[in-house]
Amino acid sequence: MTDVINGYAAAASDADLAPFQFTRRHPRADDVVIDIQYCGVCHSDLHQARNDWGNTRYPVVPGHEIIGRVISVGESVTRFKAGDVVGVGCLVDSCGECAPCCEGEEQYCVNQPTPTYNGIDRHDGLATYGGYSERIVVAERFVLRVPDGLDAKAAAPLLCAGITSYSPLRHWNVGQGDKVAVVGLGGLGHMGLKFARAMGAEVTLITRNRDKEQEARRLGAEHVLVSSDAAQMAAAAGRFDVILDTVPTAHDLNPYLAMLHLNGTLVLVGMIGPIAPPVHSGVLVTGRRSIAGSAIGGVEEMQEMLDFCAAHGICCDVEMIEMQDINGAYERLLKSDVRYRFVIDMTTLKR
Amino acid sequence: MTDVINGYAAAASDADLAPFQFTRRHPRADDVVIDIQYCGVCHSDLHQARNDWGNTRYPVVPGHEIIGRVISVGESVTRFKAGDVVGVGCLVDSCGECAPCCEGEEQYCVNQPTPTYNGIDRHDGLATYGGYSERIVVAERFVLRVPDGLDAKAAAPLLCAGITSYSPLRHWNVGQGDKVAVVGLGGLGHMGLKFARAMGAEVTLITRNRDKEQEARRLGAEHVLVSSDAAQMAAAAGRFDVILDTVPTAHDLNPYLAMLHLNGTLVLVGMIGPIAPPVHSGVLVTGRRSIAGSAIGGVEEMQEMLDFCAAHGICCDVEMIEMQDINGAYERLLKSDVRYRFVIDMTTLKR
Ligand SMILES: [Zn+2]
Ligand SMILES: [Zn+2]
Ligand SMILES: [Zn+2]
Ligand SMILES: [Zn+2]
Repeated sequence: MTDVINGYAAAASDADLAPFQFTRRHPRADDVVIDIQYCGVCHSDLHQARNDWGNTRYPVVPGHEIIGRVISVGESVTRFKAGDVVGVGCLVDSCGECAPCCEGEEQYCVNQPTPTYNGIDRHDGLATYGGYSERIVVAERFVLRVPDGLDAKAAAPLLCAGITSYSPLRHWNVGQGDKVAVVGLGGLGHMGLKFARAMGAEVTLITRNRDKEQEARRLGAEHVLVSSDAAQMAAAAGRFDVILDTVPTAHDLNPYLAMLHLNGTLVLVGMIGPIAPPVHSGVLVTGRRSIAGSAIGGVEEMQEMLDFCAAHGICCDVEMIEMQDINGAYERLLKSDVRYRFVIDMTTLKR
Repeated sequence: MTDVINGYAAAASDADLAPFQFTRRHPRADDVVIDIQYCGVCHSDLHQARNDWGNTRYPVVPGHEIIGRVISVGESVTRFKAGDVVGVGCLVDSCGECAPCCEGEEQYCVNQPTPTYNGIDRHDGLATYGGYSERIVVAERFVLRVPDGLDAKAAAPLLCAGITSYSPLRHWNVGQGDKVAVVGLGGLGHMGLKFARAMGAEVTLITRNRDKEQEARRLGAEHVLVSSDAAQMAAAAGRFDVILDTVPTAHDLNPYLAMLHLNGTLVLVGMIGPIAPPVHSGVLVTGRRSIAGSAIGGVEEMQEMLDFCAAHGICCDVEMIEMQDINGAYERLLKSDVRYRFVIDMTTLKR
């Protein structure tokens, strides 16, 4: 094993992803060295590769839905050993000292958590590179155990799409008999349906698309509402305790907010940008309703989610691709043409 | 006592309030007849008189911060007797059967609660007229007991301004050591400071006005932030658990949201309209923050608040006016020229 790693990187915002060689850090005492087997393809990978958020450092090696096998561990590592199947999500470090970190909410670290790619390592100041690569070196604290019985390739997207849907459902205490709506049926939405159903909720999918009914039912929805059908939407006024809104682009929240019950919450997990058209405060005031946002989940909660998935037989619906297919996969992603997440078989990198 | 009542009404959106005679219903079995002693002047009174919300039925007799003495009670009334000092707030009825009503949250009645004025009585279909009048007839269920030790005239604004600030602080569990900010120092804001302090919070006033510091401290604030001072605002990033936003006009929520701690909530209680400029969802997502709205409070909670005020020696800061001064008071209200609530001495109506 050499420190030189093969991966795929974007070299510029208008460049296709292409083979790229780089080095990983020499493992520190608390590090786990992981041979990457599968890596999910997240919308964020595409956004970051194309510099949609204006903060990309090139070359960028995307990938933060990583499943692999432990090759070796540093001397202070206690929870993992060579051969273990493990996962790494969106973060590989955080300050460890702020209030959120101390509460196990590393994703909200007030000193900025270290992202798995396009970040700067807190110790050596070098760029972090993600899972579109052979191996990764990650501090034990940010490595997840993949329970027996989880299909490793279908587990990869749990580490971003999964936890992003799971965490708010848990935080807002979704349980038996609660009425939950999921807006949008993509990578996040299809997991939202599965999780909410497994938590005991009565689940509704709200979608633009009239022909998703059968698919939604297969994934756990009892009801399907078509968002363009104003009468259907109005008839659902005041119905939901929690609405998980996975739509990635700006959209009118007012019709959804009106569908919340007293004290209900609409949680934004897909859209980053200005909330437009504007929300009318009256729809909040008249039912003590809330609009909230939620970001991925903490390390402990991710482990809880993986264990929950194993216990409930839940995984992502994935479409396997080869590393060389990534640019085509991005084009299909832009058209939402995937059910429901691409996962790269990382052994194909070696071809 | 005759059924003809003297009051003050607006006859049209561009008319001054002027003397107006009308009739009250003959008391029903569950009714309490109240001789009105004091009535607070709420911004809503002005909005409704001038048809700012487009739903005013003329003539309108405003007033929903009513304190008076019971004259007589219907045969089934058990909790009140002649001579009791009582209060009536923004509502005089609700369906009594929907989920919010059954949970004591009549203000969120899904079948529309009956407002104290500009409403339609659920039984006889007649217009409701408010507290700018000699007497009012209200069902026992919506009458509050004014505890001994509360100054009756200063208690009047508790019934709208008070409960509007109190209810969200209670709902979001403000307690010992919590960090609460109140935005705006008007009728709602000055009560927000007093309540949050009495609940044990560390209280900050956020205001546009640099010279309100001393006044804010007198009312319970430990800190004062000037909203136009960007450096001061930025330094408070992540500080607050709850922000009670009492500003009555559209304003940018983004700088306030950034001041919320993880899981913090900004509650809108003053502004009814589109939230503009738009909120950026990133500020919600990165700290699991919420924007919520809250409306007055339920009957049981209003009683709790009155008892809380008596126990903590809290009341509104009021400026007494005569009934004949009402049009001038409205003009001053538009300039926020009142500390902090006008209360009409209703005995002046007889002059
Ligand atoms: Zn992702
Ligand atoms: Zn931290
Ligand atoms: Zn009012
Ligand atoms: Zn009701």
